Amino acid sequence: MTNDQITELVVDIAKRARIASLELAALPTETKNNFLLDLAEQLLTQTDAILEANAHDLEAAKSLDLSAPMTERLTLTPERIAAMAEGVRQVAALPDPVGIEIEHLAPPKGFDLRKIRVPMGVIGIIYESRPNVTVDCAVLCLKSGNASILRGGKEAFHSNMKLAAIVQDALRANGIHPDAVQFIPTTDRAALKVLLKQDDTIHCIIPRGGESLIRFTVENSRIPVIKHYTGVCSVYVDATADAEMAEEILINSKCQRPSVCNAAENLIVHQDAAAQLPRLAKALHDRGVELRVDSHARALLAASGLPLVNAWPEDFATEYTDLIIAIAIVPDLKAAIDLINANSSGHTDSIVTADTAAAQNFLTSVDSAAVFHNASTRFSDGFEFGLGAEIGISTDRLHARGPMGLNELCTYTYVLHGTGETR
Amino acid sequence: MTNDQITELVVDIAKRARIASLELAALPTETKNNFLLDLAEQLLTQTDAILEANAHDLEAAKSLDLSAPMTERLTLTPERIAAMAEGVRQVAALPDPVGIEIEHLAPPKGFDLRKIRVPMGVIGIIYESRPNVTVDCAVLCLKSGNASILRGGKEAFHSNMKLAAIVQDALRANGIHPDAVQFIPTTDRAALKVLLKQDDTIHCIIPRGGESLIRFTVENSRIPVIKHYTGVCSVYVDATADAEMAEEILINSKCQRPSVCNAAENLIVHQDAAAQLPRLAKALHDRGVELRVDSHARALLAASGLPLVNAWPEDFATEYTDLIIAIAIVPDLKAAIDLINANSSGHTDSIVTADTAAAQNFLTSVDSAAVFHNASTRFSDGFEFGLGAEIGISTDRLHARGPMGLNELCTYTYVLHGTGETR
Repeated sequence: MTNDQITELVVDIAKRARIASLELAALPTETKNNFLLDLAEQLLTQTDAILEANAHDLEAAKSLDLSAPMTERLTLTPERIAAMAEGVRQVAALPDPVGIEIEHLAPPKGFDLRKIRVPMGVIGIIYESRPNVTVDCAVLCLKSGNASILRGGKEAFHSNMKLAAIVQDALRANGIHPDAVQFIPTTDRAALKVLLKQDDTIHCIIPRGGESLIRFTVENSRIPVIKHYTGVCSVYVDATADAEMAEEILINSKCQRPSVCNAAENLIVHQDAAAQLPRLAKALHDRGVELRVDSHARALLAASGLPLVNAWPEDFATEYTDLIIAIAIVPDLKAAIDLINANSSGHTDSIVTADTAAAQNFLTSVDSAAVFHNASTRFSDGFEFGLGAEIGISTDRLHARGPMGLNELCTYTYVLHGTGETR
Repeated sequence: MTNDQITELVVDIAKRARIASLELAALPTETKNNFLLDLAEQLLTQTDAILEANAHDLEAAKSLDLSAPMTERLTLTPERIAAMAEGVRQVAALPDPVGIEIEHLAPPKGFDLRKIRVPMGVIGIIYESRPNVTVDCAVLCLKSGNASILRGGKEAFHSNMKLAAIVQDALRANGIHPDAVQFIPTTDRAALKVLLKQDDTIHCIIPRGGESLIRFTVENSRIPVIKHYTGVCSVYVDATADAEMAEEILINSKCQRPSVCNAAENLIVHQDAAAQLPRLAKALHDRGVELRVDSHARALLAASGLPLVNAWPEDFATEYTDLIIAIAIVPDLKAAIDLINANSSGHTDSIVTADTAAAQNFLTSVDSAAVFHNASTRFSDGFEFGLGAEIGISTDRLHARGPMGLNELCTYTYVLHGTGETR
């Protein structure tokens, strides 16, 4: 395609999405849920065809020289397709966020004024190699009354096209505007640049992927972007922390699933709890965690015989997504808070302490989306928070912060019922 | 200043604002209010000095060849300074939005999880000729616990510098970090470009000004922007509208203050209410309103003898901010809704009708920040909604939509109290 053809294609997709979105906003919950249940069924029925498209991508991946984790993310299996279908059913079971009264205001003139939750309109999702994102995002947007435009990575192109076709068929079968979910049928980067300029028709862009994808999106977008950046999360063991609780929370935060954004990357220990460090460090080492220590921690662990690596300042601002942890000793609570605010990605940070005042200070002074007292950072998650399925965990402050569920895919409108009032 | 010096200056301002914001977030309400009351007092005490700085700007304005409305917006008077001080007192009287529990969640594991309102952090305000914006925005940001960076227009430079100095003195006198409110001491456009790239330290940009300023901001910003675009608002007179009520609402919406964003620009009339048009048109004409009519309206008004101008399609998408109105006749409610959704700026639209079902349809199908039934569009305002002072009326969908008060200058954090929970 020429650049002009790409521009025409993308502008047309965006305009059609906008038109569909106006219909979608008023769609009955039952219609949306029937579509979702049909889609879940179709994903199972068409498992073989999906796997065939995926095999096509996996074959092409060999020549693309993809990394092993990237190939792993790209790979679909009958189990993964079944999990995708189950995810769709779970979204059908969630309450419809649209039309809910958020607030009944008390305006001075006394007319009836309410803030009502409504869909945003059109949401663009930009993602990389995981084909299940196609279905996950399409159904969350649809349930929240939003039209979506999906733009997946080139390595998953055939899988995505097949999944998108199944979504489209299920939309048509349920009498929903087929432009409610559209997939951009080219992986040319020029299409992405055009997409990010359609601020007349697209209302929000959510990039799901690595830092370079997010950076590119922010730098090229005229449309508001909600970022889901890295998670540089810390566990802080305060002076009065219970030793057993500190160990459990630390090990769970670091080791239960080190590859995800709510896993801990840093351990910060109050000097009055320094006696706990050898035990904590051994527990980490026993689970294969590499220990990157500041000079104070090194001194405290010198006698332990554990293998130690020197931590550089930037280690405390790094998301390892691996079995590596940076360890610092601090003189007091304030130093811990300052270290976190200077280095964290504003995702999730946890204090372990028996001191209520210290906990309160930490919870009000650490500037992150989620701040925990005596709990694992791993709880920072839409399901664990009771929000249902999430489209991601926002590290932004505007609109949505932290786990972003169906409510956060909506905006609101002020609805006023008057009796002829004038100013 | 060289470009390097400008970059250094702006980056330093942004970093200092970020540091100040961490202190501000925990500032007691009383301290903030004492500052506000002091500031109000100082504005009155220093009226002569403010007028002197303003005279300097007005003198320079002569060589800048400013339009009459721009000079009018630039001009300060003792009355305007008193109104500014009164506005600051009103913000002191508003409840503190920070630390308020927005939601007590019910997570499946049963720990205590709350969503607490917290400041955004650092807010950049970019504005044009009105010097009172300096004080209005500084105090709304401060009361909501945010550090602010102000960048006013070159024509108001001396007035702004003087007002900013008074704000700084009042901050110091109340022991508040003086970097909580900073004014950029250069009007070089290079400074604005650098400011808009500081997404590590600035969390939100609010441009207050004309369309070209907003466009420039959106195209150059890596920081999330909340736009306050034009208001293209419509009054729709439905088939069953009460004639007297329709006239009152129309005249109030169009004529009470035609220069503001919540004034109506379009009149749309259902063909079954066409008999009302001559009376409505005459009432508008009697108040000096120019009538731009579509072919149907022209036919209906042919016998009236009123002066008519042909409306072009783009007239229905134009914010006149003047005594001009575009008039269309539609065959049904759906056509009215479509006309509004295709042309409005998503600000405020009102239906006048005695038909509850029609009203409900309009209120759920018109995609605007505020939708009214039987009330003047002029009520779309922070004070009238009971939100207190507003920083503007957002035509965006993310974060804040419609009137944006202190709550909308905040974000939230999830605060979890556990007892050692792990996953």
